[in-house]
Amino acid sequence: MRVKVLGSAAGGGFPQWNCGCSNCIRLRAGKLHGNPRTQAQIAFSVDSKAWFLLNASPDLRTQILATTELAPPQGPRRSPITGVFLTSADVDSAMGLLHLREFTPFRIFATPAVQQILREENTMFRVLDRATPPVQWLGFSTQPQGRSPVAVDSLGNASFGFSAVPLGGTYPDYVNDALRGKLSAEEAVVGLLVEHGEKRLFFAPSLSGKNLEWRKLAESSDLVFLDGTFWSDDELIQATGSGKTARAIGHLPLSGADGLLQQFSGAGRGRRVLIHINNTNPILDEESPEYRQVREMGWEIAQDGMEFVL
Amino acid sequence: MRVKVLGSAAGGGFPQWNCGCSNCIRLRAGKLHGNPRTQAQIAFSVDSKAWFLLNASPDLRTQILATTELAPPQGPRRSPITGVFLTSADVDSAMGLLHLREFTPFRIFATPAVQQILREENTMFRVLDRATPPVQWLGFSTQPQGRSPVAVDSLGNASFGFSAVPLGGTYPDYVNDALRGKLSAEEAVVGLLVEHGEKRLFFAPSLSGKNLEWRKLAESSDLVFLDGTFWSDDELIQATGSGKTARAIGHLPLSGADGLLQQFSGAGRGRRVLIHINNTNPILDEESPEYRQVREMGWEIAQDGMEFVL
Repeated sequence: MRVKVLGSAAGGGFPQWNCGCSNCIRLRAGKLHGNPRTQAQIAFSVDSKAWFLLNASPDLRTQILATTELAPPQGPRRSPITGVFLTSADVDSAMGLLHLREFTPFRIFATPAVQQILREENTMFRVLDRATPPVQWLGFSTQPQGRSPVAVDSLGNASFGFSAVPLGGTYPDYVNDALRGKLSAEEAVVGLLVEHGEKRLFFAPSLSGKNLEWRKLAESSDLVFLDGTFWSDDELIQATGSGKTARAIGHLPLSGADGLLQQFSGAGRGRRVLIHINNTNPILDEESPEYRQVREMGWEIAQDGMEFVL
Repeated sequence: MRVKVLGSAAGGGFPQWNCGCSNCIRLRAGKLHGNPRTQAQIAFSVDSKAWFLLNASPDLRTQILATTELAPPQGPRRSPITGVFLTSADVDSAMGLLHLREFTPFRIFATPAVQQILREENTMFRVLDRATPPVQWLGFSTQPQGRSPVAVDSLGNASFGFSAVPLGGTYPDYVNDALRGKLSAEEAVVGLLVEHGEKRLFFAPSLSGKNLEWRKLAESSDLVFLDGTFWSDDELIQATGSGKTARAIGHLPLSGADGLLQQFSGAGRGRRVLIHINNTNPILDEESPEYRQVREMGWEIAQDGMEFVL
């Protein structure tokens, strides 16, 4: 299995259009020891022909253009992109589907609740119906009995299994209370496990910390991408003078008592990569003590363009 | 007034993620005498401090990053972007509002019908309500009595007038028939006129050809951006083997009897610029006869990064 990091930043990217924080200002001025990053996006393939996306980031158009494996062949419109798995209905996760609106069929895998939000509450996503055949929406379960691998034929031969685990997060702010009350809380935010032969990839860019079920999947995986959004719980408030804590918006901070670094300290067998890194996070500065600490603890920090082979 | 072209291509950009047409293939291979282009996007300012956007393209994040005038100052989150004027509810025109979701207030100007589609049929746009104060939606009329200039204070002193003209286009495919029947056809697709002192800017990236009222506004303007989507009426069918004609999807082609080049041949006083250029359009190849013809007729062809001063 090949796994490519097309984007590694949290919502807004790095730098962020309206952000005058120390990281963004220094990056724009060329004075930060660190790299710009587009919004978190993974692509994987088990045969180097058919590629699947984990989420569809707001930067997906530029990310596809930067990835030669995803270029279309000569001729009528088509694409190596065969399917998209969604972890939530957040703008960060789903907006990029609108970049894929140009009449090419593919498959979208999402929980029933996420599908309902995108398809019934946001008619714009119907642009995907214009393809021949229309883009196909497929559900998956977060219930234990649903977690057995599901074969996905890509180009006839290649197949892999996937399953989802609820992460305890909530529905996006834009979903109104009446609808929110009707939807299963378990389907709001999920982590995704992809299995191919003996190899396992786990992806969870939003860890609320309220559900620890993901840990055993992560520990048994060869490659895990976990929520690296914030270093500290009050980081957004410090940087912007207002806002909410990291935990209040569904992200376990990296540092502190019961932060991610403590919760997942390397018991697993695989490579551990932080992704969905907010522009305010000090680990983006490769000269910071936080960067050194994370690296010394054996974590990798996702960067656009990274590739892993399992 | 300063006017910047942040993007110049039609929906999908150039190259387009799934397109294997001759232009896209040659551009990817570095064999086209021409430039890549992001999706159509204009910014203007009358004081070089407050900037306004004409539409909000799907590429808006990268377009802002490429434009130093739009970088935020150091400190809490804010932006020189003060307002956005929408010509339609198309994905090409409005998707980029979601890039502006990070808690900074600004104003959106759109017809009541376009507002209804975006705000009631697409709840995702409610992410803009999280700013303090929330992003403000303001209506404008396409009726003759509404066409007098409306002053817009930007940063206290600077002001300009704007007005809208219906262009005869239809609502996007994703709007269902029931809603479509209730909305005023005049509010679906508009051209925008910006006036500052004696200077006039006119913007109409989608000309259906069914309404010619725009011509007198364009002729009296110093700078006009007009629909350069397709060269010929059957271009999309030729390139993709299926699809609709240019006219059927609301774009007057450039060439042919009653095409745009014939309809607007230079009677006006201002600079004439083609924008919203589809990846299949031969004018993107600067060695093509179509490129030469357009340039010899006095047209300019929009490119990302162009600036005009009126």
